Amino acid sequence: MQLLEQRILKDGKVFSGNVLKVDSFLNHQLDVELLDEMGLELKNLFKDSDITKILTIEASGIGVGCMVAKHFNCPLLFAKKSKTLNIKGDVYTSKVESFTHQCTYDIIVSKDFLNHNDTVLIVDDFLAKGNALIGLIDIVNQSGANLAGCGIAIEKGYQGGGDKLRAQGIRVESMAIVEEMDDKTGKIIFRK
Amino acid sequence: MQLLEQRILKDGKVFSGNVLKVDSFLNHQLDVELLDEMGLELKNLFKDSDITKILTIEASGIGVGCMVAKHFNCPLLFAKKSKTLNIKGDVYTSKVESFTHQCTYDIIVSKDFLNHNDTVLIVDDFLAKGNALIGLIDIVNQSGANLAGCGIAIEKGYQGGGDKLRAQGIRVESMAIVEEMDDKTGKIIFRK
Repeated sequence: MQLLEQRILKDGKVFSGNVLKVDSFLNHQLDVELLDEMGLELKNLFKDSDITKILTIEASGIGVGCMVAKHFNCPLLFAKKSKTLNIKGDVYTSKVESFTHQCTYDIIVSKDFLNHNDTVLIVDDFLAKGNALIGLIDIVNQSGANLAGCGIAIEKGYQGGGDKLRAQGIRVESMAIVEEMDDKTGKIIFRK
Repeated sequence: MQLLEQRILKDGKVFSGNVLKVDSFLNHQLDVELLDEMGLELKNLFKDSDITKILTIEASGIGVGCMVAKHFNCPLLFAKKSKTLNIKGDVYTSKVESFTHQCTYDIIVSKDFLNHNDTVLIVDDFLAKGNALIGLIDIVNQSGANLAGCGIAIEKGYQGGGDKLRAQGIRVESMAIVEEMDDKTGKIIFRK
């Protein structure tokens, strides 16, 4: 998606340790209009899939997930990262290793909101090694729901998570795929 | 807002310990259309305030915050609850005591995205004792921005946080104010 690539080139910042900082428009401050355009794009890509539910993970997936759900006229469900007092009853759980936070955590989705009648589009802001997606796909599989695919804002192509999932037959659509970035020059190259 | 009150009566569940569970439409699974209606209502209420930024707190504030920001044609900024590797540079911070999670945590907003030129509407899904709002207001004050007020989905009126802020002259608009709830009968009474 050209609009997102242009925005990354304009406002994204590359830091050492594989960090692409896009917190001016994607994961701290959110450009809601840009998220809305991503929602429209994903709606076009998955228009034949009869999506009943958008699934994402807190926190930074919720913004893009909301705007995507709006275009599909369906609810957004977000996996929680720790069991709180307010989640009771039966849940699906999976484990996710976080590169950003350097830890492993449990993700939790209530069984009340996902079952074999659902067709799910998983949405997230970032895809690097694919750990969060693997956890979310595990939860979709546990629920018996049909997985239509994954819609991602920014994929770090060189980290291989997206291509590994594609090789398993999972449809992964990323609005921008970064193939190379250099924290010394600030240069960012996208997959054609 | 009648639409939200009706939805709380239909799908909300009251549990002991002052818990109103609305995770089927507000803070686990999100009814994006309902959030959109709340955004429209808040736009009407604050239409003369020249809002430049919606401020909320991760995670469950992001959904409603996104849909509110859409109606104001401005960015959504969400306070983060812990310092991650991806937040660098100068930040505003404040401390918040969480009733739900029974802990105290730091909230963080990058100084890059909030300053004295902004007029801020703070948005959140819940208002009980008001601790999260007090932390967010503290951050707005640190930044020198103008605070237009607070827009809340569900206020627990009997916990007094909203009225305490109103007594300080802060405009707090809640889409539904629960005055009483009973976990034995499941009864919920709203402020008129």
